[in-house]
Amino acid sequence: MQKIIIIGSGNVAFHLAKQFLNATDFDLIGYHSPHGINKSSDFYPTCYLSSQDVFNETDCVFIVAVNDDQVALAAKDLPASKLVVHTSGSLPWQVLPDSMRRGVLYPLQTFSKNRVVQFDQVPLFVETEFSEDLPLLKSLAKELSPIQYESTFELRQHLHVAAVFSCNFVNHCYAIAQKLCKEQSLPFDILRPLIEETAEKIKTLDPVQAQTGPAIRHDQKTIDRHLSLIDNPQWQLIYQEMSDSIQSLKFKV
Amino acid sequence: MQKIIIIGSGNVAFHLAKQFLNATDFDLIGYHSPHGINKSSDFYPTCYLSSQDVFNETDCVFIVAVNDDQVALAAKDLPASKLVVHTSGSLPWQVLPDSMRRGVLYPLQTFSKNRVVQFDQVPLFVETEFSEDLPLLKSLAKELSPIQYESTFELRQHLHVAAVFSCNFVNHCYAIAQKLCKEQSLPFDILRPLIEETAEKIKTLDPVQAQTGPAIRHDQKTIDRHLSLIDNPQWQLIYQEMSDSIQSLKFKV
Repeated sequence: MQKIIIIGSGNVAFHLAKQFLNATDFDLIGYHSPHGINKSSDFYPTCYLSSQDVFNETDCVFIVAVNDDQVALAAKDLPASKLVVHTSGSLPWQVLPDSMRRGVLYPLQTFSKNRVVQFDQVPLFVETEFSEDLPLLKSLAKELSPIQYESTFELRQHLHVAAVFSCNFVNHCYAIAQKLCKEQSLPFDILRPLIEETAEKIKTLDPVQAQTGPAIRHDQKTIDRHLSLIDNPQWQLIYQEMSDSIQSLKFKV
Repeated sequence: MQKIIIIGSGNVAFHLAKQFLNATDFDLIGYHSPHGINKSSDFYPTCYLSSQDVFNETDCVFIVAVNDDQVALAAKDLPASKLVVHTSGSLPWQVLPDSMRRGVLYPLQTFSKNRVVQFDQVPLFVETEFSEDLPLLKSLAKELSPIQYESTFELRQHLHVAAVFSCNFVNHCYAIAQKLCKEQSLPFDILRPLIEETAEKIKTLDPVQAQTGPAIRHDQKTIDRHLSLIDNPQWQLIYQEMSDSIQSLKFKV
């Protein structure tokens, strides 16, 4: 059985480790973190390996799942000539040391420790430096999800921008809305049916067709009143930019 | 039985009509639209009433569900002394003619014709000019949803701003993401699991805690690279403003 070691102890590393514990064709030996065992390691689903343990592993695939700015450092002492992949949406495989057989395994999903991930629905984007390593990486990815794409750095970066809009910025809109409710002593729960329906309706409608609200109706009076009700200058700017963009997109799609 | 007439033929009017057809304590007589019967009227679940039919109705409650800028006009010929409510999130009841007993019935939800609405989960915000009319409006609202709040114009406006962020702007983020995928010849379906998980996770996590992505990690390299990948200047601005705001909010909540 092909052995795997995960480098990292954050959200992505944690969920990958959980998933690979149930793998049939791969054997997760354990994880290593450049920071050592951190406070959340009690919950980590596999054993901690020392630097020495890691370096002594022959015939192992390494998955480096750490913050973007730590990938190069976290990989630098891994054994040479092994397949080493990172999981970042926005880094080329070239950030890994060139003594290794490099690659990428990017899961297009948002990971939080306390959330169960439906991995079999997560699209995975794979890249390898050497074409001979692609079958191995694909079979490894298959343990996670049947939805796989061969990618390029170029494609992955664009995809990551789309992910930032549809996940990170969407979540920030929720956060602003929650803050606005709090200011009026209203529970955030009041917005949940609206949030749910907004995400649900684009399963059957194109987002451009699903657009509602004052901007798409060109209801300038409401837009102006809303701007005057927003105290936070950053949120005022966002309100203005988003409204302008909604009105422009209508004619472009 | 208390009779109801709906004024309007748009998304909100359509869904209210569907709902009131199943009402037990109210009798939906039909609808009237200032524009007459429009092309979608074939699907309207109740009969069309002429201006004359409407004016002759005694002992009737009128629900005016038209675009904000048409509320005053649509209500102007309704019979005097009757309870007339509009359904807008951002208008005071004072926009209705003062010959009537005025009020508001604001459903906090996004409505599209082809989507079934789970009305019993929609929060409703009610206001009446005369306190004597409140019990009638509340019993009417009860036919739609058990989640009811007595509101004020002030509160309703703030709530509407929160709704714009958590629904209209969220949907626009989806639209931008779809456009970015299209530019890379990727199907929008690729983003659906991410979109779903983003909406799902705030059921158990606070949105501020659920925040992920380059902005919250202060990953300036990725932010800069993303900005250089975005062709549309409006989306560049949105990317920048949202990232700034994510970083500010972290310290404010």
